[in-house]
Amino acid sequence: MEKKILNINKIPRTILANPEASLADVLRAQLGLTGTKVGCGMAQCGCCSVIMDGKVVRSCVTKMNKVEEGAEITTIEGIGTPDNLHPLQVSWMVHGGAQCGFCSPGFIVSAKALLDKNSKPTREDVRDWFQNHRNACRCTGYKPLVDAVMDAARVLRGEITREQLAYKLPADGRIWGGKYPRPSALAKVTGTCDYGADLGLKLPPDTLQLALAQAKVSHANIVSIDTSEAEKMPGVYKVVTHKDVKGKNRITGLITFPTNKGDGWDRPILCDTKVFQFGDAIAIVCADTVENARAAAEKVNVKLEELPAYMSAPAAMADDAIEIHPGTPNVYYEQKIAKGDETKPLMDSAAYVVEDEFYLQRQPHLTMEPDAGFAYFDDEGRLTIQSKSIAIFLHHAMIAPGLGIEPDKLRLVQNPAGGTFGYKFSPTMEALVGAAAMATGRPVFLRYDYHQHISYTGKRSPFFIKLKYGADKNGKIIAMESDWLVDHGPYSEFGDLLTLRGAQFIGAGYGIPSIRGRGRTVCTNHAWGSAFRSFGSPQSFLASEVLMDELAEKIGMDPLELRALNVYHPGDTTPTGQEPEVYSFKEMIDKLRPLYQKAKEKAKAESTAEVKKGVGVSIGIYGCGIDGPDASRVAIELTREGVTVFSSWEDHGQGADMGCLGTAHEALRPMGIAPEKIKLVMNDTAITPNSGPSGGSRQQVVTGNAIKNGCELLLAAMKKPGGGYRTYDEMAAEKIPVRYAGKWVASMNAACDENAQGKPFAIYMYGVFMSEVAVDVKTGKVKVEGFTLVADVGKINNKLVVDGQIYGGVAQGIGLALSEDFEDLKKHSSLLSCGIPYAKDIPDNFNILYVETPRVNGPFGAAGVGELPLTSPHTSIVNAIYNACGVRITRLPALPEKVKAGLEAKAAH
Amino acid sequence: MEKKILNINKIPRTILANPEASLADVLRAQLGLTGTKVGCGMAQCGCCSVIMDGKVVRSCVTKMNKVEEGAEITTIEGIGTPDNLHPLQVSWMVHGGAQCGFCSPGFIVSAKALLDKNSKPTREDVRDWFQNHRNACRCTGYKPLVDAVMDAARVLRGEITREQLAYKLPADGRIWGGKYPRPSALAKVTGTCDYGADLGLKLPPDTLQLALAQAKVSHANIVSIDTSEAEKMPGVYKVVTHKDVKGKNRITGLITFPTNKGDGWDRPILCDTKVFQFGDAIAIVCADTVENARAAAEKVNVKLEELPAYMSAPAAMADDAIEIHPGTPNVYYEQKIAKGDETKPLMDSAAYVVEDEFYLQRQPHLTMEPDAGFAYFDDEGRLTIQSKSIAIFLHHAMIAPGLGIEPDKLRLVQNPAGGTFGYKFSPTMEALVGAAAMATGRPVFLRYDYHQHISYTGKRSPFFIKLKYGADKNGKIIAMESDWLVDHGPYSEFGDLLTLRGAQFIGAGYGIPSIRGRGRTVCTNHAWGSAFRSFGSPQSFLASEVLMDELAEKIGMDPLELRALNVYHPGDTTPTGQEPEVYSFKEMIDKLRPLYQKAKEKAKAESTAEVKKGVGVSIGIYGCGIDGPDASRVAIELTREGVTVFSSWEDHGQGADMGCLGTAHEALRPMGIAPEKIKLVMNDTAITPNSGPSGGSRQQVVTGNAIKNGCELLLAAMKKPGGGYRTYDEMAAEKIPVRYAGKWVASMNAACDENAQGKPFAIYMYGVFMSEVAVDVKTGKVKVEGFTLVADVGKINNKLVVDGQIYGGVAQGIGLALSEDFEDLKKHSSLLSCGIPYAKDIPDNFNILYVETPRVNGPFGAAGVGELPLTSPHTSIVNAIYNACGVRITRLPALPEKVKAGLEAKAAH
Repeated sequence: MEKKILNINKIPRTILANPEASLADVLRAQLGLTGTKVGCGMAQCGCCSVIMDGKVVRSCVTKMNKVEEGAEITTIEGIGTPDNLHPLQVSWMVHGGAQCGFCSPGFIVSAKALLDKNSKPTREDVRDWFQNHRNACRCTGYKPLVDAVMDAARVLRGEITREQLAYKLPADGRIWGGKYPRPSALAKVTGTCDYGADLGLKLPPDTLQLALAQAKVSHANIVSIDTSEAEKMPGVYKVVTHKDVKGKNRITGLITFPTNKGDGWDRPILCDTKVFQFGDAIAIVCADTVENARAAAEKVNVKLEELPAYMSAPAAMADDAIEIHPGTPNVYYEQKIAKGDETKPLMDSAAYVVEDEFYLQRQPHLTMEPDAGFAYFDDEGRLTIQSKSIAIFLHHAMIAPGLGIEPDKLRLVQNPAGGTFGYKFSPTMEALVGAAAMATGRPVFLRYDYHQHISYTGKRSPFFIKLKYGADKNGKIIAMESDWLVDHGPYSEFGDLLTLRGAQFIGAGYGIPSIRGRGRTVCTNHAWGSAFRSFGSPQSFLASEVLMDELAEKIGMDPLELRALNVYHPGDTTPTGQEPEVYSFKEMIDKLRPLYQKAKEKAKAESTAEVKKGVGVSIGIYGCGIDGPDASRVAIELTREGVTVFSSWEDHGQGADMGCLGTAHEALRPMGIAPEKIKLVMNDTAITPNSGPSGGSRQQVVTGNAIKNGCELLLAAMKKPGGGYRTYDEMAAEKIPVRYAGKWVASMNAACDENAQGKPFAIYMYGVFMSEVAVDVKTGKVKVEGFTLVADVGKINNKLVVDGQIYGGVAQGIGLALSEDFEDLKKHSSLLSCGIPYAKDIPDNFNILYVETPRVNGPFGAAGVGELPLTSPHTSIVNAIYNACGVRITRLPALPEKVKAGLEAKAAH
Repeated sequence: MEKKILNINKIPRTILANPEASLADVLRAQLGLTGTKVGCGMAQCGCCSVIMDGKVVRSCVTKMNKVEEGAEITTIEGIGTPDNLHPLQVSWMVHGGAQCGFCSPGFIVSAKALLDKNSKPTREDVRDWFQNHRNACRCTGYKPLVDAVMDAARVLRGEITREQLAYKLPADGRIWGGKYPRPSALAKVTGTCDYGADLGLKLPPDTLQLALAQAKVSHANIVSIDTSEAEKMPGVYKVVTHKDVKGKNRITGLITFPTNKGDGWDRPILCDTKVFQFGDAIAIVCADTVENARAAAEKVNVKLEELPAYMSAPAAMADDAIEIHPGTPNVYYEQKIAKGDETKPLMDSAAYVVEDEFYLQRQPHLTMEPDAGFAYFDDEGRLTIQSKSIAIFLHHAMIAPGLGIEPDKLRLVQNPAGGTFGYKFSPTMEALVGAAAMATGRPVFLRYDYHQHISYTGKRSPFFIKLKYGADKNGKIIAMESDWLVDHGPYSEFGDLLTLRGAQFIGAGYGIPSIRGRGRTVCTNHAWGSAFRSFGSPQSFLASEVLMDELAEKIGMDPLELRALNVYHPGDTTPTGQEPEVYSFKEMIDKLRPLYQKAKEKAKAESTAEVKKGVGVSIGIYGCGIDGPDASRVAIELTREGVTVFSSWEDHGQGADMGCLGTAHEALRPMGIAPEKIKLVMNDTAITPNSGPSGGSRQQVVTGNAIKNGCELLLAAMKKPGGGYRTYDEMAAEKIPVRYAGKWVASMNAACDENAQGKPFAIYMYGVFMSEVAVDVKTGKVKVEGFTLVADVGKINNKLVVDGQIYGGVAQGIGLALSEDFEDLKKHSSLLSCGIPYAKDIPDNFNILYVETPRVNGPFGAAGVGELPLTSPHTSIVNAIYNACGVRITRLPALPEKVKAGLEAKAAH
């Protein structure tokens, strides 16, 4: 142990630490300065940035023996506090810089060091700084962060005042449609928002630290599990195996469709008979420190009989492939689509026919925060599990039987989440921490390191798609034939639903009268498929939107004009035979057209022999909700201090708090309540009603309507006969109830039938995407230089949230198009190797145009937003690459070597 | 475990805690908010004050189940930060409100709540508030804290600006003699100063928590120690007993005098054969959590054969008393004093003779911070012990042989100390944590609870004194005879030195030509004697200053005038035969006289039948240094950034940092250095030279001179031939050394001989004390309504520090006079029952007048200060009580029942 005096946030503090410990761990675990977050732990994300002697350092890899005696260290806690915010923190709030907020402290600290050095940076200086300091953000697409730094610099230079920068309530007191900063922003920009790992450090001292013994192969029979050596290791309290799990030891997938050949009970909590994928948990070591737990986990002795690993859908479908789950065929679900007339005759007679094959990769979510959670028995004896779950009631049902606990003895709570983007639609460690708490009776804490986080949480499931369009002589599509395979990994949960999404979204946006096709869900040994933003649609649109460009080329039409011809017009129906609720595409394309023309001219002008520039377009659509009559419940209560909204609108980081607040405030405006008087109580199955999961852009619509309903019930009760509203005391005096259950059911929906026909969503979101790319001919490297999205997401609740969702979603689409993948278990083990986009990978020339068509069934006209921006941005990039250099990418990502090979093949041709 | 969302410092935070846990523990240990300090843990000191929903609560006794969901909690961290101090924090700094600083966060938080409620409080409102909220301070005497609140309120009301309140460097840049706030003040007022328990929470996660198995009797033979049951308790890593201690298992008292009949090896680290006092440590449990360690400590099974406990010096001297340390008589040291002629003939011929017997009680130090420390092996393999030691090199020598460690493998470091007032001149837990670290190889942490802190740390040793004065007809004292017994408890360390102090200070201040007497050191089974501010002098002056009033009464002289007659005049010598270095008393008494007259008139005018008022005076003296040629070493180093001062000027809380800085800055002024460019490195045997212990008001003189010497050597080296000073770079270029050893030896001193004659101290401090008291005739309760001290402590380094030392020392004297004691092991178990003075027990009418006589041997004319104010304030109170109501108290404390009994006896008489 080493003693050093360091000046931390201007105060000399004596530090006693292991010289090999990281500065981040010392700041967080020893000094309690949990404002410094640890994301990847490999210096690739910058969440742990602190300023040391004037330089930004990533504290996760800064060993204490490299920190000099007397070093001046500034952490987020030293930048500003809630009472005394630094202009950067104010600016971060008003620009929506903090979405999940996990990267915010690191960015703000990094930006502080930049402004200390350069008081008047250009936007490009800021982008270079973040690029060079590896400050990664997965939520915002970087542009709002650059905006925030530029405005903070203006305040620091005295060009504007802090007050001018800060949010001001408009004269009418209305926040709906404005830029009210989300309630959680203050905590996020000051480092006082406690994520799972932060809360973990703040648990009582008797908390046990957990480490997993995990499978290092992808498919095997388990011969034996011997924990005796591990149990003897220092500090070990207990080693938990499947034998200690009281219930069925399975997570139930709650299968959606009866034709599913599996039963949904395929995922073990702790492996017993088989290992199904790399990383599967076999034992949990419970110890006094995490180091002791990890050391002991290495000593769990597992004997395995290795089996052939099927790492893709085709491999698992081979004739000689054994059943991964004995008794269930590897192809366990098939979804047909049949709309209109038989397509074969139509294809035979079509003026133009195009067909192609596509593959969309296993996209990793790459959240800044790795998975973390904990469990304990609460004061009422309930097993309480706190995690990043974005589906607390759903997960409650999925894990209770496996753990063997009565439902009313199980409580799920969501911690602030440093991004999920859908991976937390699946249970991850919930059942593991639950089993450990049940086996030990003690509070238990588990955090995955980043490699575990990547390899042992669900991924976007790859689709293999064959698609064929037939069009008439004008270019109007008359028929579509599709076939898609879904590589869903070993666990079936939501696999059938995902397969249905192919039917719903391949070809969506166009009024194609006749469709025939089928999708199949395939069990493999690669990472299990979990939800990912725009669930199923990026795969679908890769096929239908790239093939659209192929059709345009074949016909000789401009791709945008071919789309303008085919998009939904009154009388058209969706692939599921539903009439769209609005017809926005024409207006949207009209809005884009002049920009598109200008972009094409610019690309042409700027193209050289070395760098080819091009423009691509695409459309994207997503439904708001869960297929069929989706429902949500909330409670609205009048208190002496204001109004409390109880909901389980779980937060990935997207802004559930702002969603609740904005909707409730708009609904309660008649009573004249100030926004700060609305209190939010969220995401605890013991306290908040079941609002359904945060997936499929459903919450603003479904829970938003429930909030509106609850608020209206309250207002009705408060209304005085002579006008005006009763106060809390008047309600009490008149014995009028103050708490109202708000609910809403999407009863206008109808789930899809066996031919995928139905009205699954009452509300859709629509987007027209345009990419401007530059292709380096020598390297094949593609750079997205400009991006435009014309979006119709209905009336906007909060501009910061909606802008932020779009910037971030598109940024993930750029990664999806160009770099992201999780295929090679060895190589794809970090943010960097998985291809996360940094600041300079996302264009600063990034524009959003809104067409705000009010939705009849949306609260105050709103739709959702989260899924839209990732439905189809990548397809516009792929189309732009072709436009630039004539290379058609059909298997993502469009890595430089792939583009280069295409260029070379073209040159050889 | 319970989940709650609390608004802590304006941010909603999820708290997961045991409902029975205290809010203080949750804030500190779980949330890392260690600005909230825990002192007594019994709601008696207010160090743990936080604001909860607008009210000040003591968080140490606020259980989490009493903290309501959504409660608004403000801790010191939420009041202000280094960058954004609250006016209270600024005011605390400029008024010297933070001495040890341990109470500062609690006071500031409490004052914040007051000012939130009452923006314009009177001084009495402030005092009432602190009284009612049990905010206790042991350093400042409260007056500076009231000053601080009043000025902060002015800032908050806009009457003065924060800048007007803040310290401003004078135009000449000189800080010597001014009110520069001590360097540690910023950390102390912001809660970022980490004391032992705070550092303990910030140790690496593999740290073991210790708990002691202690004796519950005062004297016993040990039959057996069985740790087997304790070892089986949950979380226990090891139980350490004397068998695990590698060395002699004794702390050596380093006996001062060869005539001592003990050998100094009487104090076990861990008891082996005998228990010598209540609380003696028998075993140390090392476990994962402190709760587990404590539970296991209860299971250590010790079989004892109880022996008679000698709880006072007379009891231990009884004929039938057995030897507490077999082989060493219970009276183990005798100190004679013989000055001038034989006294018997003088007494026989004296015009006036008075004699009386006196007892000064076992005063407890009652620091706000209970003892805490830890040990670990550093990066060079040294056993490193961090504690509150104010004598790191001395303790190094005292514990190394007992632990069985090579001296160069042992390192001692002082933590910021929340007050010691001398108890840490003795090792307390240093050897215990050292033994545990050696036995386990792991970092270990130990904190005493307040009961352990009171019962298992040293106390001021009671004196039983018989004293006789003979005076001539004018009142001039011609002879003194003294006999004193020192009840030193079971451990001999410094007991002989303390006994010598009786010879040096009984009758000090008066030029008594002939003295005969003897003091004896007695081993008992009550608390061992450790140093306490003014070591030996409050006992001495109780006798000589109260007897002085008896003499004045007998003669019929005014007590002040009798003193004026007898105090040192040129030609007089001290009891040890030394010529005083200055003769300040005349000027001091002249200064006091008019105030004294006024006070007497006031007392007379205000006395009623129910409340009798009176005035008392006394004088006090103390030497600066350790008897004889005391020495100190420091190092002064020029760096690129400024100058670094390396010293082991340990800090009780008195202001060692300011002492170093003020002295170094004054010495370095020729080079024109700004104070903030002087860096202090302090109190680590591995890094800082041996400056000697912080006791006996020696540091400002001895280490002050060493600093001056080092700075002068540096300046001489820096001086350019043509004038001006070389920069660091110039020194480097010319290869001139930049680091200089500063040292100073009090070579003009001569230790006392067997007759207590010598020149032990080159410099003394002088004080004339005046108390104004009111005695409630019905209850006997005494209230000190006014206090004045005329002090000559030489030239003043820092006014805030010196004022603060005086206010605080006198306040401890008021407690000593009226309430403080540690006698009854059961009753005297808390701050309150031990009689600590609260705000209203100390007068706001509290004046200090300085006579700044420069000292030739002091750096820049300075003497010390710390001991002076507690030499004799209590005697002025005792004399004032007599003046008020005619009751002469000779056994302290003057509890109401004692005064009442005196009044009743007088009435009966």
